[in-house]
Amino acid sequence: MSAKRAVVIDLKFERREIDAALRNAFQGRDVLRASDRDQDLSAAGYAIVWKPDADLFRRAPNLQVLFSGGAGVDHILAMPDLPDLPIVRFVDQSLTTRMSEWVVLQCLSHMRQAPRYLKQQRERVWRELPQPEARDLTVGVMGLGVLGQDSANKLKMMGFDVVGWSRRKKELPGIETFDADGIDAFLSRSDILVGLLPLTPETRGLFNAALFSKLRKGGRLGAPVFINAGRGGSQVEADVLAALQEGTLGGASLDVFETEPLATDSPLWAMDNVIITPHAASASDAAALFRHAERQIDRIEAGQPLEHLVDRGTGY
Amino acid sequence: MSAKRAVVIDLKFERREIDAALRNAFQGRDVLRASDRDQDLSAAGYAIVWKPDADLFRRAPNLQVLFSGGAGVDHILAMPDLPDLPIVRFVDQSLTTRMSEWVVLQCLSHMRQAPRYLKQQRERVWRELPQPEARDLTVGVMGLGVLGQDSANKLKMMGFDVVGWSRRKKELPGIETFDADGIDAFLSRSDILVGLLPLTPETRGLFNAALFSKLRKGGRLGAPVFINAGRGGSQVEADVLAALQEGTLGGASLDVFETEPLATDSPLWAMDNVIITPHAASASDAAALFRHAERQIDRIEAGQPLEHLVDRGTGY
Ligand SMILES: NC(=O)c1ccc[n+]([C@@H]2O[C@H](COP(=O)([O-])OP(=O)(O)OC[C@H]3O[C@@H](n4cnc5c(N)ncnc54)[C@H](OP(=O)(O)O)[C@@H]3O)[C@@H](O)[C@H]2O)c1
Ligand SMILES: NC(=O)c1ccc[n+]([C@@H]2O[C@H](COP(=O)([O-])OP(=O)(O)OC[C@H]3O[C@@H](n4cnc5c(N)ncnc54)[C@H](OP(=O)(O)O)[C@@H]3O)[C@@H](O)[C@H]2O)c1
Repeated sequence: MSAKRAVVIDLKFERREIDAALRNAFQGRDVLRASDRDQDLSAAGYAIVWKPDADLFRRAPNLQVLFSGGAGVDHILAMPDLPDLPIVRFVDQSLTTRMSEWVVLQCLSHMRQAPRYLKQQRERVWRELPQPEARDLTVGVMGLGVLGQDSANKLKMMGFDVVGWSRRKKELPGIETFDADGIDAFLSRSDILVGLLPLTPETRGLFNAALFSKLRKGGRLGAPVFINAGRGGSQVEADVLAALQEGTLGGASLDVFETEPLATDSPLWAMDNVIITPHAASASDAAALFRHAERQIDRIEAGQPLEHLVDRGTGY
Repeated sequence: MSAKRAVVIDLKFERREIDAALRNAFQGRDVLRASDRDQDLSAAGYAIVWKPDADLFRRAPNLQVLFSGGAGVDHILAMPDLPDLPIVRFVDQSLTTRMSEWVVLQCLSHMRQAPRYLKQQRERVWRELPQPEARDLTVGVMGLGVLGQDSANKLKMMGFDVVGWSRRKKELPGIETFDADGIDAFLSRSDILVGLLPLTPETRGLFNAALFSKLRKGGRLGAPVFINAGRGGSQVEADVLAALQEGTLGGASLDVFETEPLATDSPLWAMDNVIITPHAASASDAAALFRHAERQIDRIEAGQPLEHLVDRGTGY
């Protein structure tokens, strides 16, 4: 019996979480750490990476498959000297569910004016504010992949009117969908815009002043709300800020930023109508990630095709 | 054709909202205002009231039915000299839906540690916090009437494990239910407790230190959370405060208070883990209230029984 190919881990997650998850993972297989700088990685056939070291591929020249530590792969595709290997993204029920829960929370928060009530609370002011119900608002979900579809369905269950947008038109029960060309019609319907797009050359800088100006005006929220949990590179933060300041946007929930961590001097932190979370809408769970990689390794070693493969042409 | 019985309005709502809603209501019927102190109210056969004047029944001695301006009727039953008339409570789809949306928002907010993230935001701190998903938490809903059932169903749809408690045991698909006697078992299951009870002699002071100490310990939130949108009289506010301070409770969302508006000097306003809304979880919409009263008046004038009648024996 030939030895099983080793796995190299290069995840910029919390060390303790990785150690704990590795205790029950990859039985009978060597697990190497890229963080051990003296470690010889030449036996590694598989790499599980999140924001990998620039020299990983030089150190591990015998890789066969790359596993992304998250649903997004922009952190891998941006690497210089990336070898031409299959890349598997992380798809996981809990990851999907936690993202939808974050999205529903943000939509309800803005609908029920949580930021304004909170400001009143700090000022000890007892004053009722007008509040629509979910059916009065249309949420436009940009990106109808694994995360976007689940979020759209949960928003629909909660009573929101939901429209969706993706490169290739989707058929989703009860949800009006638009393809890339239908973007203006899609935006003009949206009281709340939810971004769940991967970062690709096409989506970079997509959320800008021109786009915000096309969102629905005169809806029940007064002004549209922008929510982004895809990637910060898709938003032009200066435009988000200006739109919030001049009232083109009435509020925002941002989990991702052009530069992370968000700079301490960003004016976004202090805006009452902005809700900030630190790229935590849906963190990868290391144990689930390793289970997912094990399943795919089992498949490839049994001669079956890999799932959740990235298309380098489209960049996601 | 005999003249239709007049309606008297004694709602302590915003005057403008009532005026606007009355424009399309009670066509062909006199509408009297209790706020016009010189108005003769003796022709009134129906009264629509929210926190009515103490002398209403003396001024309107020919009433046949009382309509509550809200789902609760404690504001009526507490009146001295209340005549022995049928009381109809306000039941309305939008009222129900907005309550459920508030409840789901509060449960998701505590689950995703919104108060702690907000504190971090104010301090410009980028730090991820542990976050369970809905299926990891059990929400216990106290009161399974019109509002409690709808909230329980929406929480279930969102993925929470849900248990319910009511005076008489209910059968709800996918939701484990307990009757009055099962309260301790019910409490020991609940990571988040949601109060949607009417204020009656039996529910007054129910949410107290003894009850909080029976909630589930060691759940994924660290400490249980108390959410109340029923009536403030059901909670012992000093106990809520103490439980929050000593850690028996990890957080709270309160829409109702022993005295409303909440006193400016209440320590609750300033607590980071407490979310306060000003009895606004689900405000009655005046137009919907008048449509509801018209439907019931049509029924009684057509010889049909009234719906949503209050049982004076149980107090709701
Ligand atoms: N903040 C967080 O915690 C967090 C966590 C996980 C993931 N994410 C982000 O969420 C992203 C989405 O994840 P996913 O699993 O849902 O990805 P996915 O399944 O690959 O779906 C991507 C969706 O975006 C659409 N899309 C891509 N490029 C487009 C374009 N140029 N124009 C229009 N639509 C386009 C795709 O359209 P088609 O359907 O036509 O292909 C697809 O519907 C990830 O890439 C990652 O960046 C963030
Ligand atoms: N904050 C707000 O904006 C707002 C808005 C609307 C209403 N509310 C409050 O919400 C309350 C509930 O409204 P609803 O329409 O759902 O009322 P409902 O349909 O009359 O339901 C009341 C529920 O409470 C249960 N209950 C009553 N007394 C009990 C006791 N002693 N022990 C155990 N269970 C008991 C009832 O049990 P059974 O099923 O066995 O009868 C029933 O399930 C209202 O009374 C009002 O005070 C607040």
